[in-house]
Amino acid sequence: MKPKTQAPRRPATRFLSPEDIAAIVTRKGVATCLEGMAAYLRDDFLRWSAFDKRARVASHSPDGVIELMPIADERTYAFKYVNGHPTNSQRGLPTVMAFGVLADVDTGLPELVSELTLTTALRTAAVSAVAAQALAREDCTTMALIGNGAQSEFQALAFHHLLGIEEFNLFDTDRAATEKLMRNLRRAGVRAVPFASTRDAVRGADIVTTVTADKARATILTPDMIEPGMHVNAVGGDCPGKTELHAGVLRMADVFVEYEPQTRIEGDIQQMPADFPVTELWRVLAGCAQGRTDAAQVTVFDSVGFALEDFSALRFLRDAADQFGISTALSLIPRLADPKDLFGFLHDRGGNRRPRAQPVHAAVSSAP
Amino acid sequence: MKPKTQAPRRPATRFLSPEDIAAIVTRKGVATCLEGMAAYLRDDFLRWSAFDKRARVASHSPDGVIELMPIADERTYAFKYVNGHPTNSQRGLPTVMAFGVLADVDTGLPELVSELTLTTALRTAAVSAVAAQALAREDCTTMALIGNGAQSEFQALAFHHLLGIEEFNLFDTDRAATEKLMRNLRRAGVRAVPFASTRDAVRGADIVTTVTADKARATILTPDMIEPGMHVNAVGGDCPGKTELHAGVLRMADVFVEYEPQTRIEGDIQQMPADFPVTELWRVLAGCAQGRTDAAQVTVFDSVGFALEDFSALRFLRDAADQFGISTALSLIPRLADPKDLFGFLHDRGGNRRPRAQPVHAAVSSAP
Repeated sequence: MKPKTQAPRRPATRFLSPEDIAAIVTRKGVATCLEGMAAYLRDDFLRWSAFDKRARVASHSPDGVIELMPIADERTYAFKYVNGHPTNSQRGLPTVMAFGVLADVDTGLPELVSELTLTTALRTAAVSAVAAQALAREDCTTMALIGNGAQSEFQALAFHHLLGIEEFNLFDTDRAATEKLMRNLRRAGVRAVPFASTRDAVRGADIVTTVTADKARATILTPDMIEPGMHVNAVGGDCPGKTELHAGVLRMADVFVEYEPQTRIEGDIQQMPADFPVTELWRVLAGCAQGRTDAAQVTVFDSVGFALEDFSALRFLRDAADQFGISTALSLIPRLADPKDLFGFLHDRGGNRRPRAQPVHAAVSSAP
Repeated sequence: MKPKTQAPRRPATRFLSPEDIAAIVTRKGVATCLEGMAAYLRDDFLRWSAFDKRARVASHSPDGVIELMPIADERTYAFKYVNGHPTNSQRGLPTVMAFGVLADVDTGLPELVSELTLTTALRTAAVSAVAAQALAREDCTTMALIGNGAQSEFQALAFHHLLGIEEFNLFDTDRAATEKLMRNLRRAGVRAVPFASTRDAVRGADIVTTVTADKARATILTPDMIEPGMHVNAVGGDCPGKTELHAGVLRMADVFVEYEPQTRIEGDIQQMPADFPVTELWRVLAGCAQGRTDAAQVTVFDSVGFALEDFSALRFLRDAADQFGISTALSLIPRLADPKDLFGFLHDRGGNRRPRAQPVHAAVSSAP
């Protein structure tokens, strides 16, 4: 990382829109972004004890969930706002939408507000790849990809670029989703084959990734589908009442998680007794615990998404935006001549709502 | 309220900057804003059981705290990000900085992002006034205002306009802060007198408001300063280890709180045993509990700030912005042609970061 200059004394909040993130990914390339994000993730996982961690704060409703995911180290505080609404695609909206903030611990100033919808898909895929590098067999070439929605391309590309997976076996109950994934992977030069069922797609695969979106106890994978040596990357079961794996799959595997207190509530292991053994991924990365020990072992990464990962993703994006000079200021915190004279701001600025500077681009535009 | 139109199907997030809030307050007038906010607050307090409530999520550091305050009813989710860093004013930054979101519970879409630094000061003052209307004597004319920082003008104006307080006795350890408050109140046509100590300022006052900012156990008010019939509006003691009242003041008073589970942790009552009797304010407003019962009673409103109040404030501001046609779009959530094709956004938008519309004003501008 390049050296940081001293933070400015007056409140300055930067903003990154989805267009900014798309520009960063296009200019860096998807593979470089996934690799870079994976490197930031590993760095932060190896600083595990430096973080003030907690399970995310969820607000459940009949159709979905809205969550806040805060985390902090000594210098930087981060949080993500994210929803999960499986029926959103029927309304023309993404199932998962997110944004987040990096703030300075010493002053509480929110320094960066960023979109995290695209970013969550990138970071989730990067985390899956980091886990699989530690847990899957080294000779993996084929991955079954069950659930071909918004996150599936990112999963496929992460496993293609970071683990060398050459072939993807696809299944989704929505054929249009599979066709969209086929199209996008073809454009990226990645080989993919559609299958008629989960069972068919999983057969013979080295890695199985489940990234389905139902808000229900689903049983996507049953024990009879699991073959010796498989690594299961279970991404879609991520809130209370939302699972993808039959309990028997968990029982026959060694199970790895991000942050145990949160995964006990939200992960596929919510089905299991409280003392069901799991290992936190950071321990494997740090060499404190073993990952895969033999070629026949079944491993499961019960991924639910943890605030640390958004912290890493936000750091990566801030640095990438710096690199390309992508910087837009958001007027979020009032700039006060006297910090104790908040009231004075009403008089000084109340009659002065007109532009004083032109935006770099349309992060903010006239509302329709 | 005017009827709402159907929410748009494509993600549209609105943004309100500090300049927007200042414009709303200037156009409506401070008194009307405080009265309007108080009305929204009362409405929401009377719907108490309709809300999914929890204590806020705090992240403490040596110099301050960063908090997330979520709340939701059946239709709307809201949260606030807010810090409290008493030493910030030495760095030229506000002690308290905040922003927040209103989101649609049915889809998880963040519909409004708004500054909440100015707004927190307004809503805190409006809550104090709503509480005092229920708890203070009806013949109050004088208020002592201990702590003359960023929130003090808002407190004074709320009590002036909503309770008819005619004279304010001021004290702060920082004389410049008192001079600033004197200046701002004079400009607003409100009578204020500086005093040499808390004791002097409190003597003979009908209401005592403490709004100091030390992150420490402070003892601003001691039992010997309290006179029969006083109402104490204790605003500054609002996180673990940060108090303003001597325990004896609490013992001689009837104590009212916003949301008991949070106030037990954060309020001045953190000094008291877990069974120290308190009454939630909404119960008084709803007629389920008694407020003041006689003219000699001492009442304390142990205010810490509750997420419900930001929910009300955000609703009020959204409606006020509608009224004045203040509306700025923020590109926070990607607009997807196919909601399952998030990846396609990278290709469609990655090379297209230039403006497609001009902003209404400088909510977003070129970063310095």
